[in-house]
Amino acid sequence: MRIGAVEAGGTKFVCGYGNEQGVIEDRISFPTEMPEITIPKVIDYFRDKGVAAIGIGSFGPLGVDRTRPEYGHVTTTPKPGWNGYDFLGALKAAYPVPFGWDTDVNAAAYGEAIWGAAKGQSSCVYYTVGTGIGVGVYAQGRLVHGLVHPEGGHVLTRRHPEDAFAGVCPYHGDCLEGMAAGPGIEKRWGVKGSELPKDHPAWELEAYYLAQSIANTILLLSPQKVILGGGVMKQEQLFPLIRNEVSRNLNGYVSARALTEELDDYIVPPGLGDNAGLAGSLALGLAALRGIEV
Amino acid sequence: MRIGAVEAGGTKFVCGYGNEQGVIEDRISFPTEMPEITIPKVIDYFRDKGVAAIGIGSFGPLGVDRTRPEYGHVTTTPKPGWNGYDFLGALKAAYPVPFGWDTDVNAAAYGEAIWGAAKGQSSCVYYTVGTGIGVGVYAQGRLVHGLVHPEGGHVLTRRHPEDAFAGVCPYHGDCLEGMAAGPGIEKRWGVKGSELPKDHPAWELEAYYLAQSIANTILLLSPQKVILGGGVMKQEQLFPLIRNEVSRNLNGYVSARALTEELDDYIVPPGLGDNAGLAGSLALGLAALRGIEV
Repeated sequence: MRIGAVEAGGTKFVCGYGNEQGVIEDRISFPTEMPEITIPKVIDYFRDKGVAAIGIGSFGPLGVDRTRPEYGHVTTTPKPGWNGYDFLGALKAAYPVPFGWDTDVNAAAYGEAIWGAAKGQSSCVYYTVGTGIGVGVYAQGRLVHGLVHPEGGHVLTRRHPEDAFAGVCPYHGDCLEGMAAGPGIEKRWGVKGSELPKDHPAWELEAYYLAQSIANTILLLSPQKVILGGGVMKQEQLFPLIRNEVSRNLNGYVSARALTEELDDYIVPPGLGDNAGLAGSLALGLAALRGIEV
Repeated sequence: MRIGAVEAGGTKFVCGYGNEQGVIEDRISFPTEMPEITIPKVIDYFRDKGVAAIGIGSFGPLGVDRTRPEYGHVTTTPKPGWNGYDFLGALKAAYPVPFGWDTDVNAAAYGEAIWGAAKGQSSCVYYTVGTGIGVGVYAQGRLVHGLVHPEGGHVLTRRHPEDAFAGVCPYHGDCLEGMAAGPGIEKRWGVKGSELPKDHPAWELEAYYLAQSIANTILLLSPQKVILGGGVMKQEQLFPLIRNEVSRNLNGYVSARALTEELDDYIVPPGLGDNAGLAGSLALGLAALRGIEV
């Protein structure tokens, strides 16, 4: 059986399909433009694929509360054409199959919990660190929603004592995203992070901010796995730096082997690699097909 | 039908019972001493009460994972006699009834979700601000556990630019609990918070720290209600100060009426008042009786 998946990012869309084990069998990608251009491409992609269900993990903010009229819509984004757009409705009108729908990061967290680094766990958090910072939260076997959905990239962290950078978040200046996402790194150092050497002090500072937010998340939620994905996390030297900083922040307060001897296996890259988002979307589609509320 | 409840605090124990609507019909309290003294008092209290189930909300840290041998135990507390004590086991040996078991703050969060300020909501967070700071987390209709359970009182917050106080947390110094719980207030100002006038600058600083943590929690979890209880929150002047600071921190980023026009009804005292902990424990007992996993 084929399950469709859409990973809808602010920069590019990925469409694909795969099987019930989460194996991606085909994918295409194209830039995110106005919905009038982009959504027909999505609909075209699935035309001859015979998918039994489709899961969508989308950039946000989104309406994720099934009881509200904005369910399935992209809501208050500044992205031209997408503010208030009925993304899910447009696809439902084209395909009479069950649909899964959540944020891109919640989708990735779910994919990791079903098939990836948090397989068999009932909780995990998934951070994507790229052009922005997003956090997906899976707890007690469910994806977390509430008033809206997690927006954990915008938490405030303590400023490094030697850091005078103002941050680039238009809402908060020096929130986590403003300090530690790609645009903040580039503004601070004058070059893209990918052009900085692996031993550049940028990475210690990056780890300082990410680890503080991760330690706070561990304290608040006690997740069974912390998964770090996205373009910035391709800098693998960040993982040991982040683990050390998380450990320093917690200072032994929470008694759990995962946070001491097993820390290398606790703060990890996505088990699904670059497929976390797409496979997570697929997992949402599969859950919808099976009538499982996630 | 009578349901028993134990609110086990680090300073005092409260035992009581009530009905299926959460109405507390009787209660007693006594100081928390060594378990050999305190637990027999609990057992004695329930001897002639004929309760159909008992719920326990306890100071921690606790074993809350049913699959682990430390389930039902108090774990790594410095409190004499309680480290590793099988609290639930001792009560189970005395009464062959269903037992609910969770942290005091998770119990309070659950009570508030069932009968209090978050009634009808599928998510809320409950802060207690007293001799320590604890956070209970209810999300997607479940109490959140993971590696262990939430310990959200120990998150790091940004220091107020004019504040040089070192904080009193033995693990983290100036974490939220170190700065904003009762002992921090007393150490900082030289008198107990309850003796400070309502317009003392202490309260703006208190609101500054609590609000920062609350704003971060809203961003990470998007709870449908934030409930603030505990001795320090008897200072009612804190509520408007905290709401203002939360609003300033979020700066309009999360689009939800609860965070703007309805903020006064979003960050609130416990709907169950001083009964939040005991009624929450009762609710845990009732859930256990009904076989509901919370």
